[in-house]
Amino acid sequence: MCQLLGMNCNTPTDITFSFEGFRRRGGITDHHADGFGIGFFEGKGIRLFHDDKPSTNSPVADLVRDYPIKSENVIAHIRKASQGQTSLANTHPFMREMWGEYWLFAHNGHLIDFAPEQGNFYRAVGCTDSERSFCYILNHLRQQFSEKPDEATLFAAISELTHEIRTYGLFNFMMSNGDCLFAHASTLLHYIVRKAPFGQARLLDNDVMVDFAEVTTPNDKVAVIATLPLTRDETWHQLAVNELVMFRQGDIVRSDKPHTAIYMSVEEGLALARAVGVSC
Amino acid sequence: MCQLLGMNCNTPTDITFSFEGFRRRGGITDHHADGFGIGFFEGKGIRLFHDDKPSTNSPVADLVRDYPIKSENVIAHIRKASQGQTSLANTHPFMREMWGEYWLFAHNGHLIDFAPEQGNFYRAVGCTDSERSFCYILNHLRQQFSEKPDEATLFAAISELTHEIRTYGLFNFMMSNGDCLFAHASTLLHYIVRKAPFGQARLLDNDVMVDFAEVTTPNDKVAVIATLPLTRDETWHQLAVNELVMFRQGDIVRSDKPHTAIYMSVEEGLALARAVGVSC
Repeated sequence: MCQLLGMNCNTPTDITFSFEGFRRRGGITDHHADGFGIGFFEGKGIRLFHDDKPSTNSPVADLVRDYPIKSENVIAHIRKASQGQTSLANTHPFMREMWGEYWLFAHNGHLIDFAPEQGNFYRAVGCTDSERSFCYILNHLRQQFSEKPDEATLFAAISELTHEIRTYGLFNFMMSNGDCLFAHASTLLHYIVRKAPFGQARLLDNDVMVDFAEVTTPNDKVAVIATLPLTRDETWHQLAVNELVMFRQGDIVRSDKPHTAIYMSVEEGLALARAVGVSC
Repeated sequence: MCQLLGMNCNTPTDITFSFEGFRRRGGITDHHADGFGIGFFEGKGIRLFHDDKPSTNSPVADLVRDYPIKSENVIAHIRKASQGQTSLANTHPFMREMWGEYWLFAHNGHLIDFAPEQGNFYRAVGCTDSERSFCYILNHLRQQFSEKPDEATLFAAISELTHEIRTYGLFNFMMSNGDCLFAHASTLLHYIVRKAPFGQARLLDNDVMVDFAEVTTPNDKVAVIATLPLTRDETWHQLAVNELVMFRQGDIVRSDKPHTAIYMSVEEGLALARAVGVSC
């Protein structure tokens, strides 16, 4: 199964600590060795790093580790291509411009027979169901709204499109325009909001510890979202199955959590991913 | 003045030698210290590296130097922001998707009062005349052709749009979809096509020499396009003022060279850039 990592904060923050654990899942502590990608918003601009090498031994991942880029919104993805080619064109996150903003999108899951008609505005370049679903969302948003709508309308529209797409299969995704970050769970997606009083945490995938009190100010609020928790010594929360949330400034500000919230165990989620042959 | 660098080849080639000289113009041998960007096509995918640090001391540029990425089409840009902010959103090359392909664009020049109406498909994210001109070209192409037209039609359409935009000022640019590379000169744009028998060359900006015979095969054909020649020991050619060319497989395959071709001297080109306050 591919893995997702996202960050949404109220102040530009570097993601090197979380990324260090996350990248080890690309070949060392797990088997997602078909490339990786990470996109950092800086203001309205984006730094986008893609590599078709496993993230554990990618020079591009080394750069990301050694060059602490501060960002308020980050989306990263490690790819396990159980179907489809390993190629740069299929490497997440994908980027498009809509309403004069860049949008990033990364997906973990598997959509069966998802082949929507070609939209008017956006087309997939590669051959993944993931990029097709991103283009589908953007085409429909752009068709409905020639200008960016207010936040409530935008959230409702993305929630509706997500509901539609997830009938095709597993659809864990993250999407951001550099202002807010949308995260949706079909199976497994965990998050933590770090804020004062900051404590210490140790990576699950690597013997690295950080004392957040030393690298933050009291007003910082940093949400980290990942397929699986990245640290011990901290309590991670989980998105319900079929829940879409919107993060802004390090907090969940909107959710469409189902009335009967179901939380999938890690074992169930991984078993389901194996059963349907998750590709991304 | 900003500087442009492009490469178009018939076989995936690394640009590290040319880039090594080029990047030194970002702060050491010239004054273009407001960030840089480089995009490499790999198949239909793109690796895009942007930095708002000067290219001479950018960790991202170090990565590009140390990680020889082989590509058939590359576009790079060093920015001298004589107007406008230095920000990631204003850093070339810009990228958009059209007809299911990624397109890269970088510009060196200055367009005065170029504020076209908002198009239906593409909008600028940053605040440069460069990105506006790129979106203008794409909007008009997409409006004219819902699918990619044949090569002759595409070249004629880009030639016409270029003719229109250059009435607003200086418009040296490069644009590629990973298959062909368009280059247009308002003032200075030089190129060289390296092919067998390959010789040696020494960078103008750095005491580095390469023997191309050692790093090529006899069938390789590599076009390098740059604002100013990068090497001694080789004969660089120049695009005529107002000439648009299309490179494919390392050769110029189309040109709209004016009947009366005018070639600007380097001194004239630099003086003109200074006079109009070239920004990009």
